[in-house]
Amino acid sequence: MAKPAKPAASVMLTRAQIKFVSSLQLKKFRRQHSLFTAEGSKVVIELLASSIKLHSLYALPAWKEQNSQLTQRFQGNFFEVNQKELERMSGFKTASQVLGVFEVPSDEHKEPPTLDGPWLALDGIQDPGNLGTILRTADWFGIHYIICSENTAEAFSPKVVQSTMGSIARVKITYQDLEKFLKLIYPARPVYAAMMKGIPLQKVGFENNAILVLGSEGRGISSRLMPFITHPVTIPAHASDGPGILRPESLNASVAAAILCWELQRNKS
Amino acid sequence: MAKPAKPAASVMLTRAQIKFVSSLQLKKFRRQHSLFTAEGSKVVIELLASSIKLHSLYALPAWKEQNSQLTQRFQGNFFEVNQKELERMSGFKTASQVLGVFEVPSDEHKEPPTLDGPWLALDGIQDPGNLGTILRTADWFGIHYIICSENTAEAFSPKVVQSTMGSIARVKITYQDLEKFLKLIYPARPVYAAMMKGIPLQKVGFENNAILVLGSEGRGISSRLMPFITHPVTIPAHASDGPGILRPESLNASVAAAILCWELQRNKS
Repeated sequence: MAKPAKPAASVMLTRAQIKFVSSLQLKKFRRQHSLFTAEGSKVVIELLASSIKLHSLYALPAWKEQNSQLTQRFQGNFFEVNQKELERMSGFKTASQVLGVFEVPSDEHKEPPTLDGPWLALDGIQDPGNLGTILRTADWFGIHYIICSENTAEAFSPKVVQSTMGSIARVKITYQDLEKFLKLIYPARPVYAAMMKGIPLQKVGFENNAILVLGSEGRGISSRLMPFITHPVTIPAHASDGPGILRPESLNASVAAAILCWELQRNKS
Repeated sequence: MAKPAKPAASVMLTRAQIKFVSSLQLKKFRRQHSLFTAEGSKVVIELLASSIKLHSLYALPAWKEQNSQLTQRFQGNFFEVNQKELERMSGFKTASQVLGVFEVPSDEHKEPPTLDGPWLALDGIQDPGNLGTILRTADWFGIHYIICSENTAEAFSPKVVQSTMGSIARVKITYQDLEKFLKLIYPARPVYAAMMKGIPLQKVGFENNAILVLGSEGRGISSRLMPFITHPVTIPAHASDGPGILRPESLNASVAAAILCWELQRNKS
């Protein structure tokens, strides 16, 4: 166990503050304050390097020493804490060395049709791990604008932030009514969507400015979005020659997303 | 809450039996008895339809009614249970309607080089969710032979079985020393591996009988396997034009696996 930490030179940590940070583990308070938490050195450092604004930063003495440039740069918002304090603030069973509270970025791209480049539209992705992995994958493939339907999981929840592995700092996320959004751009931009019956993916030539719609884990694409899908796409299965009797029914949502994002950018690298 | 169930006509469930099934949540006992558990209707039904042998089957009255053909077929091994009994046997917070105990299939393909078709070799995949998703993806793409290094997570643990969504019933898994395995087939079969520096994936023409090696989440491919990799492969990132400063470092292991499996089979459908 770490020794009780000396309070940082500049600022003292109060009990109320620990309670406040800990309250941000709940969606209600994240909404109310437009703040979210990020834990772990990698994610926090990526967020500190991004355009996302820091509210406050909490770290063990060891992390402070290893990252003295950062803690000096954010001196006014930095608090040295001990293991116990960090654990009380953390949303995870095992607290990391550092926790940052950041401002939820505003929906700066609320008016999407003017922005070029590929877009990802998520129609009700429920699992936080899937959502985080999808954001990480989109970032890898240079797809930086993500539009989520209002019933998609919350992108700034601790579990999603964690599973983006830092990509949350680079993708731009907005929550909107997807039907309205697609109506607005129809038929100016090509809209691709993964579904059971569509063009086999390897035969699809993705146009520029593609919008890629991904359905939810259980239900797929909402029927009300169907009229705006200009290119239904299928990832063909090769399961017929397997040793079992039944066939697999579907791919994991983050796996389907990955294959589509890869294919969208396949011939552009 | 469900009413206490009547014991099934043929067989009575004993306390010892509940304890026995519950003990299979631990790796030690799964190893000792060469048995594993599967929960949830979909996974259990797929396993019952496969070549994997049933040891015993436990279900709520409602499931029994809906699946009377199955429960009759496996009459001698079927036990009707109540909610409380099922919860005591379950490895999950929320028990499903049915739990099956199955025999871990023997390593029937211990001598792999004689078997045709693509193979997946997993070098130390640690996360059960990733492993399960990889098995599900491999099944989708008709890659049915999986060879795992000895430090890869256990494929028959409840969490892996669950996240395969039934594919565990169709893929054939063996645990072996990967270095020995690759030595044995070198250079007769082409061995592809995902790594940071390799041929850009879109330029790789996969040969038949490919072996695809996937490294662990943190460390990638073990250095001792390197001499046997005939085709190092890279999934190029497109991150340079993003709004952030840093770049993403890697893809999730199950995402990288998915893109490689897709590409391996891309032109064969």
